[in-house]
Amino acid sequence: MIGVLGGGQLGQMLGLAGIPLAGIPLGERFRFLDPAGDPPASAVGEHVRGAFDDPVALDRLAAGARVVTYEFERVPAASARRIAATVPVRPGPAALEAAQDRLSEKRLFESVGLPVHAYRPVDTREDLARAADELGLPLVVKVRHGGYDGKGQALVRDPDGIEAAWAALGGRPLLAEALVAFDREVSIVAVRDPGGVTAAYPLVENRHRDGILDLTLAPAPGAPPELQAEAERHAAAVMGALDFVGVLCIELFEAGGRLLGNELAPRVHNSGHWTIEGARTSQFENHLRAIGGLPLGPTDAIGHAAMVNLVGDEPDRAALLAVPGAAVHLYGKASRPGRKLGHVTLVDEDPERLAARLAAVRALVPGRPDPGVGAFAGSVG
Amino acid sequence: MIGVLGGGQLGQMLGLAGIPLAGIPLGERFRFLDPAGDPPASAVGEHVRGAFDDPVALDRLAAGARVVTYEFERVPAASARRIAATVPVRPGPAALEAAQDRLSEKRLFESVGLPVHAYRPVDTREDLARAADELGLPLVVKVRHGGYDGKGQALVRDPDGIEAAWAALGGRPLLAEALVAFDREVSIVAVRDPGGVTAAYPLVENRHRDGILDLTLAPAPGAPPELQAEAERHAAAVMGALDFVGVLCIELFEAGGRLLGNELAPRVHNSGHWTIEGARTSQFENHLRAIGGLPLGPTDAIGHAAMVNLVGDEPDRAALLAVPGAAVHLYGKASRPGRKLGHVTLVDEDPERLAARLAAVRALVPGRPDPGVGAFAGSVG
Repeated sequence: MIGVLGGGQLGQMLGLAGIPLAGIPLGERFRFLDPAGDPPASAVGEHVRGAFDDPVALDRLAAGARVVTYEFERVPAASARRIAATVPVRPGPAALEAAQDRLSEKRLFESVGLPVHAYRPVDTREDLARAADELGLPLVVKVRHGGYDGKGQALVRDPDGIEAAWAALGGRPLLAEALVAFDREVSIVAVRDPGGVTAAYPLVENRHRDGILDLTLAPAPGAPPELQAEAERHAAAVMGALDFVGVLCIELFEAGGRLLGNELAPRVHNSGHWTIEGARTSQFENHLRAIGGLPLGPTDAIGHAAMVNLVGDEPDRAALLAVPGAAVHLYGKASRPGRKLGHVTLVDEDPERLAARLAAVRALVPGRPDPGVGAFAGSVG
Repeated sequence: MIGVLGGGQLGQMLGLAGIPLAGIPLGERFRFLDPAGDPPASAVGEHVRGAFDDPVALDRLAAGARVVTYEFERVPAASARRIAATVPVRPGPAALEAAQDRLSEKRLFESVGLPVHAYRPVDTREDLARAADELGLPLVVKVRHGGYDGKGQALVRDPDGIEAAWAALGGRPLLAEALVAFDREVSIVAVRDPGGVTAAYPLVENRHRDGILDLTLAPAPGAPPELQAEAERHAAAVMGALDFVGVLCIELFEAGGRLLGNELAPRVHNSGHWTIEGARTSQFENHLRAIGGLPLGPTDAIGHAAMVNLVGDEPDRAALLAVPGAAVHLYGKASRPGRKLGHVTLVDEDPERLAARLAAVRALVPGRPDPGVGAFAGSVG
């Protein structure tokens, strides 16, 4: 039995990848801990309903599990440590902690030579004013803990904006970040096994809308081999520093042919969903291989791929399925503004045909208002 | 909810393909009727344990289902008809009946212009002696109902063999078939939607051992476009004659550049498992699209594929996963001689690299004794 903290769509896709890998003789099953009723992953395993800090629920998740993993990095590290006392937790609780604090994330990136935007820790209003002086404006203020999908962030455009940002976010540990021009957002999904063997998928290009991933292009168009090698070096170094086992994703900015570190997700990642159809082994399968101590699978791309998120509004399933080659993944969630309900992947060896089919898919995806904040939209993550 | 008669590996793979297609808002789930405890498909849906002719179990399967299908053609047609009185059964009960009787299968093939081996219905010992006279020896005697994977068959090599074949199989409706030389066994998997739109996968070559599918090569090496067109015409005609909805497979013999009909499976088929990784849309997904009234997906192959069945003995999972690009599917069944425990698929654009990896996989698959019956082994199906 494999226990998973979190039962959302990532858990569901882990289950879908893991069931065919199930151990002989009688199958290895999944168990998911999630506070929701009937979460997406309940389609592929047992669901323990409970809070991520409920010791009884945590113990039920761990009972009889061979290994426990998480699909969600906001699991309290104390919960992971509780489980780790009896069952291996992979990736380990240290990776969870590193990813839960934007400050330790930045320091981790810097420690392995991956540059980051200039930043300052901010705990007081005075810290924020000083950061504005030292880094210049505009700057982005982010909560150190718990922000995601563009939440827990504020943009300070001018000195008057400092008060507003403090009013919105003050009182929590914060980080101020210089807003530096960049060419595009990219990310790398990589995997490491218990013996330290690593593999990485091609760099991908990501485009966001309203702070939520909208589109991934894989491999990232025009990324030279040196950029790929640089990203792989950084990913391997980060994984080594954390003694990481499993799949992680590093979100990066590409600026003038160099990479800057943005965020670390110690789990399978939305920008890796294209690997289900577009790579020799999916990120989900490679995560399970890694945490199960099995040989990693090849990570090369089969062709060109594009992944479009279905966010907020119920998509027209039949119309999407009528686009030739569209692989439609629906998570079985009720629609709600800003909620990821599914995604569509297209894979094609011919980039022009891929572009035409991508246009057809995008025409069918219910429109979302453009955030209208120009370059800023790109740096929120 | 989609109800499935049968909860074996085909049901499991239907569930794996169907969960991502699940309807918005709250997900469409699967329910499987199977007499076994904890069958493979219970990993991906609800399991109703019961016999295929148990009215209470059948009614439990159908309750609330939008559509019911089967993964197993030995479901009693009366059971399918019982369900069809309240819920659409796709493919319809008529397809089930046609496939349950080797005589009606032959006549169906002949009716659409697909030639078959010379045959005679055999109900008495005298019928069998007359068939031997008229068709010549050797001939194969098969039960009309219920044989599969080489079971329920006997080879008559010489006049003395007639008694033995009768002793083994007599008393049931039988069919005697001329043993005609052929070049190889091929099969075509095709799909038809409720509006009569059809699509077909490339012809594949199948090799058997002990009457059980051992290896599928997709597309069938060297098959000319005319052969593909001929197979597609026959498949479309058979599906039209049955007003078929869903996926079926026709097993064929290729002899001197022509096709002979062998068997019909009114369901997803072992010789179509390669489509999970090797085709733009898997047979499982296209079956669900068809029975759900959704647009069919493209059926073209991505590259060259080979599928190896894992039969009888527990395979070395880690060793198989170490073969680059090997997609390992284990069904979670206990090992037993002659039992299909899983399969491995390899896909590669380069046929030579594929051959090398196939050799690596086959070296890891526990050996099975060669049936040692020469050409006969090939015609058993």
